Formats: sequence, C-alpha cells, structure tokens
Amino acid sequence: MCNPLAIEKPTLVLHAERARRNIETMASKAFKSSVRFRPHFKTHQSAQIGEWFRECGVESITVSSLDMADYFAGHGWRDITVAFPANILEIAKINGLAEAVDLGLLVESTETAVFLARHLTSRAGVWIKIDVGSQRTGIAWDRLDRVLAVAEQVERARLLSFRGLLTHAGHAYQARSREEIKKVHGETVARMAHVRAGLSAEGLPGAEVSVGDTPTCTVMDDFGDVDEIRPGNFVFYDVMQLELRVCSEEEIAVAVACPVVAKHEDRSEAVVYGGAIHLSTESIAGPDGAQAFGYVALPTQDGWGPAVQGGYVSSLSQEHGVVKLPDHVLGGLRVGDVLMVVPVHSCLTANLMKTYRTLDGQSITAMGVR
Amino acid sequence: MCNPLAIEKPTLVLHAERARRNIETMASKAFKSSVRFRPHFKTHQSAQIGEWFRECGVESITVSSLDMADYFAGHGWRDITVAFPANILEIAKINGLAEAVDLGLLVESTETAVFLARHLTSRAGVWIKIDVGSQRTGIAWDRLDRVLAVAEQVERARLLSFRGLLTHAGHAYQARSREEIKKVHGETVARMAHVRAGLSAEGLPGAEVSVGDTPTCTVMDDFGDVDEIRPGNFVFYDVMQLELRVCSEEEIAVAVACPVVAKHEDRSEAVVYGGAIHLSTESIAGPDGAQAFGYVALPTQDGWGPAVQGGYVSSLSQEHGVVKLPDHVLGGLRVGDVLMVVPVHSCLTANLMKTYRTLDGQSITAMGVR
Repeated sequence: MCNPLAIEKPTLVLHAERARRNIETMASKAFKSSVRFRPHFKTHQSAQIGEWFRECGVESITVSSLDMADYFAGHGWRDITVAFPANILEIAKINGLAEAVDLGLLVESTETAVFLARHLTSRAGVWIKIDVGSQRTGIAWDRLDRVLAVAEQVERARLLSFRGLLTHAGHAYQARSREEIKKVHGETVARMAHVRAGLSAEGLPGAEVSVGDTPTCTVMDDFGDVDEIRPGNFVFYDVMQLELRVCSEEEIAVAVACPVVAKHEDRSEAVVYGGAIHLSTESIAGPDGAQAFGYVALPTQDGWGPAVQGGYVSSLSQEHGVVKLPDHVLGGLRVGDVLMVVPVHSCLTANLMKTYRTLDGQSITAMGVR
Repeated sequence: MCNPLAIEKPTLVLHAERARRNIETMASKAFKSSVRFRPHFKTHQSAQIGEWFRECGVESITVSSLDMADYFAGHGWRDITVAFPANILEIAKINGLAEAVDLGLLVESTETAVFLARHLTSRAGVWIKIDVGSQRTGIAWDRLDRVLAVAEQVERARLLSFRGLLTHAGHAYQARSREEIKKVHGETVARMAHVRAGLSAEGLPGAEVSVGDTPTCTVMDDFGDVDEIRPGNFVFYDVMQLELRVCSEEEIAVAVACPVVAKHEDRSEAVVYGGAIHLSTESIAGPDGAQAFGYVALPTQDGWGPAVQGGYVSSLSQEHGVVKLPDHVLGGLRVGDVLMVVPVHSCLTANLMKTYRTLDGQSITAMGVR
C-alpha cells in the first residue's frame, strides 16, 4: 500500500523544514525593513512551533483570544497582543494576564475604554482598531473624531497605556493579483498615516502603526511607514494563498494525510477518511470553477508531491471527503492507500486537528491537547 | 448587561429539555413502527447525552469513527455500528473493538471484505453500504452483481457475519419540501427492498435493511419495509433542518452564546466573539438569499427567544462573527451583551465546541475533553 508516512487515520502532516523557512524569510524581511515582527500565533497555536519563531529572534506575539494569550504566557511569552476587540465579559482573565505579561488590547469604542479604565487592576497597553477598508471591525479610518474620542479616554485612564493604531487589511484576500495586493498595502499605509497625523495634530503624537495579514506581508519587500507587522498564516500557507499567487506550492507546509476508503471509477472519485471535522468546510473555486475543499497530492518519503492536476476535494461530510481524480491517478490508487489533502485554509484545519506530525514522525501538539 | 446565562466567552448552550423531548419523540416513533432505533451519536459525541438515549430504551448505536466507537464502548455501549467505510489501516483498532463489543462495519468493496477476512481476529458484523442516490459512498442500488460479489466474500469469511444492507439518503438534504423528503424515503425503501429481494433470489435471504437521516426519519410516521433507523442530528436539529421545514424553531436544542464586542450602526451590524472555530463555516441562503452562518436570538432566563427577523450571521473569521441586525434590535444592544447564534449545522458546531452548558449551568463534555 502507498503509505510512506505510515499513517492510520487523518493526520496533519507538518513539513517542518518549510515552516521554518517561511518563518526565517518573514523574520529576516521584517528585520531588514526595521519593523517589529509580532507574528500571529492563531494559525499554529503551538508552543513548540512558537519556539521556532523565538529562534529567529521573535519576542512579541499576536493571539486571537485571551485563552490563547494564557497558553502562550504559560510558555514564556511576555509581550502579547490580543488582536480581537476586548471582550469585557472576560475582565477577570484580562486582569490576570495584565498582571503577568505585557498585554496589548484592542479597543474600538469609548464604552470599552471606559469599562477597562474602571475595572483594570494592572497596566495594559491599548491599540485602537482602525478599519482601512475590510469592514469587519474597527473605527473607519476617515472618522478621526471617533478615533480621538477613544484615544482621549485611553489617555485619561491611569492603567491604560496608549500604544497606537492597529489594522487588519482583510480585503487583501479579495485581490486578484500580487499588484492588487500591493495596492491594498499602499492604501493601508497611507490611511494609517492619515490617522496618525490627525492624532498628532490634536496633541497625541507618537502612536505606533501595526498592520498585518499574510498576503500583503508576503508580497511587500518594504513595508513603508509602519512600526509592526502581524502576519500569521504564512507559517504554513495554504490553497487560498496559492490561489492568490502569494505563495508557491513548495512553500505550503501542511497537508492532511487521508486514508482512501472507497473508489468510484464511474464518477472519477475516491472517498477518503478526512472530512469537515478534519479540514473545515472552507472552500475555493477549484478547477473549472467547481467548489474545492482542498487540493490533493500523493505522499512521498519526504512529504508529498506536486498537486495532482485536475484533482480536488469536491465535497465533505462530517468524516468523508469525496476526491475528484483524473482516471490515470485513480486507476493506480487502492483502498488503503493514502492521499495528501492540501487545505484551503490552514488556520482552520490546524485548529481542528490540534496535533501535527512531522515528516520524521515527531508529534507536536497545539493548545488544548494534553 | 443582557447576559442572563452569565457566560464570558462563546459557550454552547444546550436546552436539555428540548433534546430529551427530541430523543423521546424519535424513540417512541421507532417503537411504534417496530424498527430498531440505532441513533447516530456523531452529532453529540457525549457519553452523558448518550445516557438520555439509554433512558429511552436505546441499546444499539451508530458512530462515524473507530475512535468514537472506542469512546462509547468505554461508556458501556455494547452494540455499535461504525457507519463509515471500514478503514483497513486501522485494523488493530477494529480487532480491539471486535473483541470488546458487538461491532458492525461497513463494506462496499470485495477488496475490503477480503482484507477483513484475512486480518480480523474476532467476529464482526458487516453491513454492505448501498447508494440509493446520494452518490457519496456505497454500491449503486441497481448493481446487484457488485452487491452479490461483496456478500459472497463476506459469507465465505469465518469471522464476518453478514448483517444486511445499509444506506444514507443524503440527498434528502436537497429536498425543497416535506413532500419531497417523503418521496426520497419512499424511493429509498423501494430501492433497498429491490436489493434485498435480489440477494434473496440468489440464495442470500434475511438481510436486514438499515436507513437513516434526520429529514426522512423526522417527517415519516411509518418507516415501511426497514429494520433499523439511524438518525443523528434530530437530537439538536439546527437551521439547516429548520430551512428544510423538518423541525420547528422550538425544537432546536443548541445555540452558541456569543459576547457582543463591537457595534457598527452604519452597517446595521454587531460583531460578536464567536467565529469559524466555534460555529463552523457551514452556511445557508438566509434572508434575501444572503449567505448566513447562523440565525440569531436574544437570550432569556430559560434559554433564548425566537429568531430575530432579518437577523443573521453574515460573515465569519477565525474568532469573529459579523451579525446583521434590524436597527431596532441593534439599537437596544450594548457591548458586553450576549447574542445567541443558532447554528446552521449543529453536528459541526458541537464537534468544535466539545463542551455543552445546560440552562441550569451544568457542564456536559463530549469525547476528547477531559
């Protein structure tokens, strides 16, 4: 049977060498651009993978929840930004963290700023979340009045330290080319500079600017007038980044090894053990515009080969994946063989799988696994 | 703040009374129809919720993986069908389970039957998976030759006991009305009867017929010529079943309580802490055909109220949910309030959340949580 990695069930295979190279590339680019590299750890959620960043000189990190901040604080990280609008219902957890580490919080309303000012028991840093066009969270970049109102509340509070302005250009994911991604970054930097200048003119100078998403941070060589970048996905990349032309196939560092459990030659399909609870239901327009839940490759001794042309996961149930394959590939496949599924969105896949297996058989766990 | 359930972060709230009622209704319908009720436990994945089924006389269960079979075997279940094509790479686990419980396996190819015949060390039951139209797994119902070939391999093997024919009419989820769902069931029963008669005519009488999915099992009062039903989702139901007109809102037994972290009145949106890693990215066509990742309701002392008309989760990031709300609802909402999100597909939401909280504050865990 074709199963060089000797897996028995859906297994998240990590190409450690590629992940380490991705980290080194981004770290060295940040260093050359003189910006702080504060990588987002929500993608891997693993203390052990976090150490690979530390080896590249990283000391500041980004997380997406207080629980994740807690996990990484427990693994020696001392400078943590929670890049999610502060959830005031978790004030007890915020206070615990603020006491233990240099905690950065996101605020986008005066209500939250006032609440924090009243209930914080240790000093915390505050970033004001700015919306530069993604329309998810944050104060619109052209509403300086609102930014000022929040900044003034923050300045007034004894235990809040105003750090600066933070944004996530999520709309970079809508871009159609690397040029469009660069354009999004240029616009982002300009809009953030506009807000910073506005604050400065009103007597609030010195705000830092923090940006970050994998598409812009990967395609830019020079980040321009920013102080900090916070990409996360780049550690693994995935089919979504590949389709955006942000990464190459050889930079994608994770794939889910899935046992073949059935073949249906009449439909050019194999069925694998590997479904929505392993890959997530995130999809993309695949070959011929069909909905694809992952690309497929054949396993090799040192990982996996190139994506099978015309092959993709065409549907998912809870544990089943239906894989479309060209006949010459399907013909050589047997029940009990293994297919490697390259995920559409590696953050969600890693969050579901929680345990990585490296090519040399080592097991690496993420948060929540004991 | 409006937070009667006193939650701090995304919490899967379980309306135990509704879930128990859903179980009782299905169990009593199966009893009246004289069919074996072998509920699918992949939806809740919880030993404690399993006990509620046991209280209704359930002794036989369905699961979707060998790991899940192992978990429930460890909680006293002795008759377990793994409703997933047997994964021969897990033969060691199959043998362990076959020794411990009355194990049912799904087989759809002679290759797998031959492998099991050679490697099984304890007796296991075999169901041949039949495809009655869903085109996911199974031998097409009109390919009696193939069914016979597998059945003969099974009959020949010393440690394999041929149980019968099993199908999942997944295409019931494509139906547009209860009448169409009933039509799918009628067709399913007729096709399974055809295969059973064919086997009988070839000297293989006595095959049982097992069917099951929540839409058909909920809308049918009489299941017709079948021996066993295996619905799973009905324990909780969800927005998908609601949209299929299979259940009412008052039968949906789970919702994710999500803290409001931001408001954007200009876009008629609230942002909640509750994203793809809590709800799953499963979506449905919501109001005006927009993609909806869940409906929303306001929390009450005894659970949650009716779905907010025109309200729905319009987009999800890893931890963020953007909720469209009519202005009169958004106007009354404050940061720190809680919204209840009724999930599109409760199986995937429960699989992500893994811990339930009942309305009286009890915590119920699922498989994988210690």
